[in-house]
Amino acid sequence: MPGREFTFVVDAVEEHARAGTFSTPHGVVDTPAFMAVGTLATVKALDPAELEAMGAAMILANAYHLHLRPGDALIRDLGGLHAFMGWPHPILTDSGGFQVFSLASLRTVDENGVDFRSHIDGSSRRFTPESVMQIERNLGADVIMQFDHVIPGQSDYHTARDASERSIRWLQRCTRELARLERDDPLDRDQTLFPIVQGGIHEQLRQEAARAIVESGDWRGFGVGGLSVGEAKPEMYRMLEVVNDALPTDRPRYLMGVGFPEDLVEGVKRGIDLFDCVAPTRMGRNGAAFTVDGRINIKRAEYRIDTRPLDEECDCAACRRFTRAYIRHLFVADEILGHRLLSLHNVHFLVRLMRLAREHIAAKTFGGWSRDWLARYHSRPTISA
Amino acid sequence: MPGREFTFVVDAVEEHARAGTFSTPHGVVDTPAFMAVGTLATVKALDPAELEAMGAAMILANAYHLHLRPGDALIRDLGGLHAFMGWPHPILTDSGGFQVFSLASLRTVDENGVDFRSHIDGSSRRFTPESVMQIERNLGADVIMQFDHVIPGQSDYHTARDASERSIRWLQRCTRELARLERDDPLDRDQTLFPIVQGGIHEQLRQEAARAIVESGDWRGFGVGGLSVGEAKPEMYRMLEVVNDALPTDRPRYLMGVGFPEDLVEGVKRGIDLFDCVAPTRMGRNGAAFTVDGRINIKRAEYRIDTRPLDEECDCAACRRFTRAYIRHLFVADEILGHRLLSLHNVHFLVRLMRLAREHIAAKTFGGWSRDWLARYHSRPTISA
Repeated sequence: MPGREFTFVVDAVEEHARAGTFSTPHGVVDTPAFMAVGTLATVKALDPAELEAMGAAMILANAYHLHLRPGDALIRDLGGLHAFMGWPHPILTDSGGFQVFSLASLRTVDENGVDFRSHIDGSSRRFTPESVMQIERNLGADVIMQFDHVIPGQSDYHTARDASERSIRWLQRCTRELARLERDDPLDRDQTLFPIVQGGIHEQLRQEAARAIVESGDWRGFGVGGLSVGEAKPEMYRMLEVVNDALPTDRPRYLMGVGFPEDLVEGVKRGIDLFDCVAPTRMGRNGAAFTVDGRINIKRAEYRIDTRPLDEECDCAACRRFTRAYIRHLFVADEILGHRLLSLHNVHFLVRLMRLAREHIAAKTFGGWSRDWLARYHSRPTISA
Repeated sequence: MPGREFTFVVDAVEEHARAGTFSTPHGVVDTPAFMAVGTLATVKALDPAELEAMGAAMILANAYHLHLRPGDALIRDLGGLHAFMGWPHPILTDSGGFQVFSLASLRTVDENGVDFRSHIDGSSRRFTPESVMQIERNLGADVIMQFDHVIPGQSDYHTARDASERSIRWLQRCTRELARLERDDPLDRDQTLFPIVQGGIHEQLRQEAARAIVESGDWRGFGVGGLSVGEAKPEMYRMLEVVNDALPTDRPRYLMGVGFPEDLVEGVKRGIDLFDCVAPTRMGRNGAAFTVDGRINIKRAEYRIDTRPLDEECDCAACRRFTRAYIRHLFVADEILGHRLLSLHNVHFLVRLMRLAREHIAAKTFGGWSRDWLARYHSRPTISA
């Protein structure tokens, strides 16, 4: 039975926050957890050994990007994503839904699928729930996301309902196609399909989507999509509360594309177990570093002779060895090591933040800790990167 | 007495090739050795921990570049180059002679020094032997090179003599200024000044320069400059033989700005102990990798499904873990990890090559080994990067 190697045990709860253990064929993920994004089978600027060293348990890769380059069939021929990128630990692939719908002027959607043009060479392409299952199967990640219809965060009720209902129909097609592939083209790998709860910022649609999905299968976990895409933060938090009430507590919930440190803490508080976001590496390449006192931009002149580490409470490989003055110099001189160190620090910051949250949930101190943590993080005006 | 912490012991010789131990205040360098170039206080794309792990003992940094950015006075305030860049091992600084003379149209030279314009902002600057000593003292490397007058490789006898004699006069001024600084502005560091033997491709000038320098002081080592700057390879090899005969055998000889794997082997054969070059990192960022069978360009389509490591005999952190197919993908997708892995591999290749040369000198097998090594390396037509 597909998915048999995936289990989730809730080790501790404090109000809605949960500490869990998510087991996959490639290892165990202690939750809550942040997944670094390896868009093109590499977490930008980082080496897999650095991710291992910081305790990152699971990473994400993008079906859309890997389909275009180097091609999912090639990756299959080379033994799948784990072997290809030298990451023998859990991997999740996004379905490309977010990417193709981000190509606003380059795509057209119909009930059967989406026509779009490659952002690399402009060539015509088509994704359907069936073709995406073939791609994600070729890539061979542990958790594969359904192909879904993603819409802007402020979409009206009608648009959101249309997209949510289409996503649920596409989930059924993904399920059927995956079963067919497992029968007709067996591979020595166990993958599990996560559905995605859509519904925009409309409470009723979120409830209906969650209910329909839960009733349609024995899922090993659930994605929560279409958030952090332009809606206000309170709207996002409200949707998380609605979804938290509607989903079973004995399965992991993955909030897609989120996010910033404060979003992770707010998400954990509302029952989320898994997160991913390009923010730590993208911002790191732009010179922005997370600290417990808020975000800093290392390129600013004030850090020229600052001999402190990026974050005085951080134990990452950058903060243990290098000063702000040195890292600022690397950025001013446009040196790759600067990009490396800030990417490493930022991913470590989120991985460690989720480890701390887990410890506090286990100790039943998450409520106070998260309140204090958020207050301190917000106490310094954030400087845009 | 300045320089007292620098010693050189010749552990073994085979014809002109030497295996030695060069001791500095920041540690010991087994020679022959390749120094990776950290132009701006970072070996491009690499972390100091990676250099340590591959056994790199000593690196080079550039006085010219660091004077302009972030400034040698700032680095002094921050504890010197070792502390600034997190490299507690031996460092050598180039004097900027090569850099300012490379700025052909931007500089004018007179007996007192060189006027030039910064390549960054066009501002007017002046280097003299005295100002360069102040800069290198501020930076605080173990070995500091004299300020010299560098000329193109094919320069005629008159031009080469003029520059060589000026370099010797500038050496005397460097010596006096360094003594003055050590007296008037004592610092808790021991540095040693290496003279540079110039003379272009003119045998007699090289002999005269070596003789004049040897007679003028008790140097702890010697630089050999003005080679690999446009002259033919046989001319360079001939000059190395002349200099080898003219310099004392009980001091290390450093061939500046060289080079490629074959140049290192040819240099060791002619009595050279230390080398530096940007080639491994610069070529690495362009997709070129050294292998025992010659140079390859990883971007070529032939490596698309090649599951071998870059070099099947290499034990570097890239070759132990990643295929050519994956690294090619990283380059096609312009991912930083590609630049990292090829830079790491290429520097490791040269560091290991010198380690192998040392072992063969000690075993008295260098002659046959180097002949076989060169024949194999040249057997594959080199593909330009």
